[in-house]
Amino acid sequence: MRVRGARVSLFVTLEGPEGAGKSTQLRLLAARLEAAGVTPVLTREPGGTDIGTQLRALVLDTRSLMDPMTEFLIYSASRAQLVREVVRPTLASGGVVVCDRYVDSSYAYQGYGRGLDLRHLRAVSDAATGGLLPHLTVLLDLDPATGLTRAARVGTPDRIEAAGLVFHERVRAGFQALAQADPARFLTLDATRPEGEISDRIWAAVGPHLP
Amino acid sequence: MRVRGARVSLFVTLEGPEGAGKSTQLRLLAARLEAAGVTPVLTREPGGTDIGTQLRALVLDTRSLMDPMTEFLIYSASRAQLVREVVRPTLASGGVVVCDRYVDSSYAYQGYGRGLDLRHLRAVSDAATGGLLPHLTVLLDLDPATGLTRAARVGTPDRIEAAGLVFHERVRAGFQALAQADPARFLTLDATRPEGEISDRIWAAVGPHLP
Repeated sequence: MRVRGARVSLFVTLEGPEGAGKSTQLRLLAARLEAAGVTPVLTREPGGTDIGTQLRALVLDTRSLMDPMTEFLIYSASRAQLVREVVRPTLASGGVVVCDRYVDSSYAYQGYGRGLDLRHLRAVSDAATGGLLPHLTVLLDLDPATGLTRAARVGTPDRIEAAGLVFHERVRAGFQALAQADPARFLTLDATRPEGEISDRIWAAVGPHLP
Repeated sequence: MRVRGARVSLFVTLEGPEGAGKSTQLRLLAARLEAAGVTPVLTREPGGTDIGTQLRALVLDTRSLMDPMTEFLIYSASRAQLVREVVRPTLASGGVVVCDRYVDSSYAYQGYGRGLDLRHLRAVSDAATGGLLPHLTVLLDLDPATGLTRAARVGTPDRIEAAGLVFHERVRAGFQALAQADPARFLTLDATRPEGEISDRIWAAVGPHLP
């Protein structure tokens, strides 16, 4: 699968709860793309740009008493900047973008999790991204209790991780509903499987998108 | 016009370019409300809350290379927090809110000025505010060249003021179009008139909203 120098224009996102292994799979996918001759642009939400990094710090600050709609709009602002500054230019020049979280996280966390109206969220997301969706979205599905235990081993839970198990159950159900509604875009994988096996399955799904 | 202790539930916004005298008129209106026995909550956009103040600093930073949609979404985030934290609770308890800028500034600056799709802006604003509009919006209309000269006497132009005269001509036309489309809500005044005369006309428009 050598594609060195080829124009690819591929946008892949990784979704799922904290602790599901998104960062690990992002690294493994990047390594396989590199081996195939493609240097991907790796990024994450919220963040991924200077402006996004400042917005991320503001949202994740556990001292903030932030309205859920405010939180969603800040994520959307970060997303608009990322799409304009990173994703669209990379795709336009034939590159590959792999992003840790994108619109589906907003729908799952702020919509299904916090109860914001999904029609509002979709209208705002369309405005923020100009309707740009990934070619492939990998959902690393994980029982919330397992995910929170994994994340807690890494560091102090931030404000979002601290929101409680019932919230995270709703988020998981949201991700699953989103995946079921768009099976052509989503690849849902059991995040408890060995990381090499998960990486193989992601690579098998990316393959058809490469020239 | 004594309304001491009465429940009023009034939301007034001041709109117009920098240099039109919004801050002065906000102070004069507040003094007249105080004299009538009503202590108004005075606020401004972007800002007006701790979160909004941080967002304001980010937007006004002249070093940022911000996408217009990012800018709009950050203003909307600040607005969502202001509505939730200040405007709705004040109105619910029978108070008066006077706000320096609100949704109309977004439509005028980001829509008419920067060319973002007004349908997108309205969808996002509805999500941010839950559809809350002011009872009265005072537009202080001013020729942009005059406004920029006035603002320049006060301090260094920020990024938005520095955007050029053609941009500000579009913004002015936008404000005028918004006012024409909603004459029941808008009071348009010539900002070059003496400040006492303008204050009298604003007070005359506020009167019918007081018990």
